[in-house]
Amino acid sequence: MHVGGRAVTLEGLPLKPVSSPSGAQPSTIDPNGDFEAEQMYVQYVKLATPRAKYPLLMVHGGGLTGVTWETKPDGQPGWQMFFLRGHDVYIGDGVERGRASWARYPEIFKSEPSTTTKKIAWETFRIGQLGSYRSDPPQRTAFSATQFPIASFDQFAKQFVPAFRTNGAAIQAAYDALVQKICPCVMIVLSQGGTFGYAAALNASDKVKAVIAIEPAGAPDPDRVDMARLKAVPHLVVWGDYFDGYDRWNEIRRLVERSEDALRRQGGTADRIDLPEAGVKGNSHMVMMDRNSDQVAALIQGWIEKHELMR
Amino acid sequence: MHVGGRAVTLEGLPLKPVSSPSGAQPSTIDPNGDFEAEQMYVQYVKLATPRAKYPLLMVHGGGLTGVTWETKPDGQPGWQMFFLRGHDVYIGDGVERGRASWARYPEIFKSEPSTTTKKIAWETFRIGQLGSYRSDPPQRTAFSATQFPIASFDQFAKQFVPAFRTNGAAIQAAYDALVQKICPCVMIVLSQGGTFGYAAALNASDKVKAVIAIEPAGAPDPDRVDMARLKAVPHLVVWGDYFDGYDRWNEIRRLVERSEDALRRQGGTADRIDLPEAGVKGNSHMVMMDRNSDQVAALIQGWIEKHELMR
Repeated sequence: MHVGGRAVTLEGLPLKPVSSPSGAQPSTIDPNGDFEAEQMYVQYVKLATPRAKYPLLMVHGGGLTGVTWETKPDGQPGWQMFFLRGHDVYIGDGVERGRASWARYPEIFKSEPSTTTKKIAWETFRIGQLGSYRSDPPQRTAFSATQFPIASFDQFAKQFVPAFRTNGAAIQAAYDALVQKICPCVMIVLSQGGTFGYAAALNASDKVKAVIAIEPAGAPDPDRVDMARLKAVPHLVVWGDYFDGYDRWNEIRRLVERSEDALRRQGGTADRIDLPEAGVKGNSHMVMMDRNSDQVAALIQGWIEKHELMR
Repeated sequence: MHVGGRAVTLEGLPLKPVSSPSGAQPSTIDPNGDFEAEQMYVQYVKLATPRAKYPLLMVHGGGLTGVTWETKPDGQPGWQMFFLRGHDVYIGDGVERGRASWARYPEIFKSEPSTTTKKIAWETFRIGQLGSYRSDPPQRTAFSATQFPIASFDQFAKQFVPAFRTNGAAIQAAYDALVQKICPCVMIVLSQGGTFGYAAALNASDKVKAVIAIEPAGAPDPDRVDMARLKAVPHLVVWGDYFDGYDRWNEIRRLVERSEDALRRQGGTADRIDLPEAGVKGNSHMVMMDRNSDQVAALIQGWIEKHELMR
């Protein structure tokens, strides 16, 4: 289903020329008309008899779609299948991505889009160290004990979608509308999705029963947000491996930890699984695509059970 | 999973300026780098014990995605759910759409995109007659006995995705790769998807065991194609209601019927369900979203059984 969005009308724009593939029949496109824009897409599978008290809502990261949670790039089952053993699972494609659709720019969306390059993904997602990416796959050097299935990295790159930097408010509005529609729920959020998931919990702390953030790209700033509103919403953060030398990631971790500390001071629950500290080594940023994704999912499922979120 | 596509490198392009939403922090986007492009996305649900001999591969129409086959805009179950009662179901998002992702233009994709307007959909999909669309929903006049859930029309419009006119060969290549990967199969194709489905059957008549075309936008031209290659591939075409006054649709029907006649002359099977002639009235182009979609699906299932495509 699609959730949120608004009616948009474009008028008075000039026709745009288009060449046919053969070059023989130049024609035009009329960009004017009535459209819907800024909706998000949600795919859901409901069980006949879920064992969980609330459905799971899975939120992908930047430049990606809900495909993140489906079958992994190496063809093995992903977290959607894992958590369907007991949970109803809702998977979103945030505004602008995948089946959510996207809108003409600069007339509706305000910025140029960018697409994650393979180099940025390889290095920012900590599959190999900064500077280790090469165009030619055999020449790329991954971390020696990485759990990421590196032979499937280019297959993973087929999942990347263009991202617009100017849609933050629209993306959040659609997630908030989704929470009102389908929750109470437990959110599992990845990376940039952490920002939207934390905000969704702040905006509807009665509806979001827990936030499980996988390597969140940010967390609520306790200087700007009343953390007491999240007191009844248990939080779990999961971090993978290979943070040495990644200044940006270490800065993000510090900000997230500061937010966790503030939540604890309000009497809330902010738990953390540092995978290497827990003896689980070699995970990239894309934990749910790593070879040991079931092992990590089982740790999360244990946390869900501990917090009495199963029937 | 994603199927097909190719590695693409952009280099030497200038940085593109981007304004932040607040206007405070202008920044830039670097469009250069290594990407994957022209892959398609496929979502699949396999049964423990399918009753069908072959999986179904469902192919959407122009400006749309695989969402066509999922839950209908009015929230009722769609054809994916209907056919999962016995069939494994594969649903594609063709190159350029939905979770298939899209690529920068004009550097990778060669044309400007266009998005289907609500007016074009309302009129071309025969929900109301030509000229009956209005921006304001209450002022739109639908065909009086339409089966389309008109209160959900703007919800349907949230499914529309931009379309590029210059990707035909890439779209076909990905469908052909998909057929090689997952078939033998039976294809159910809609509208523009008919063009790709018929071509996929011609390109792999050993793998495609039947083509069920819902209101196909075209069919193989017997003057240019050896129809004998399709002799062993039974074809079914399904047409909805309200063709009066739609010259373009009636011209398409004549071309499809000419193709069907040629296939029959080769000893092949070309069946047709004209829904109004069969006593099923009021269907739009988007038969699978109409209120009576289960009734039409049951007719198709009957045809599948008659052609001994069930175990």
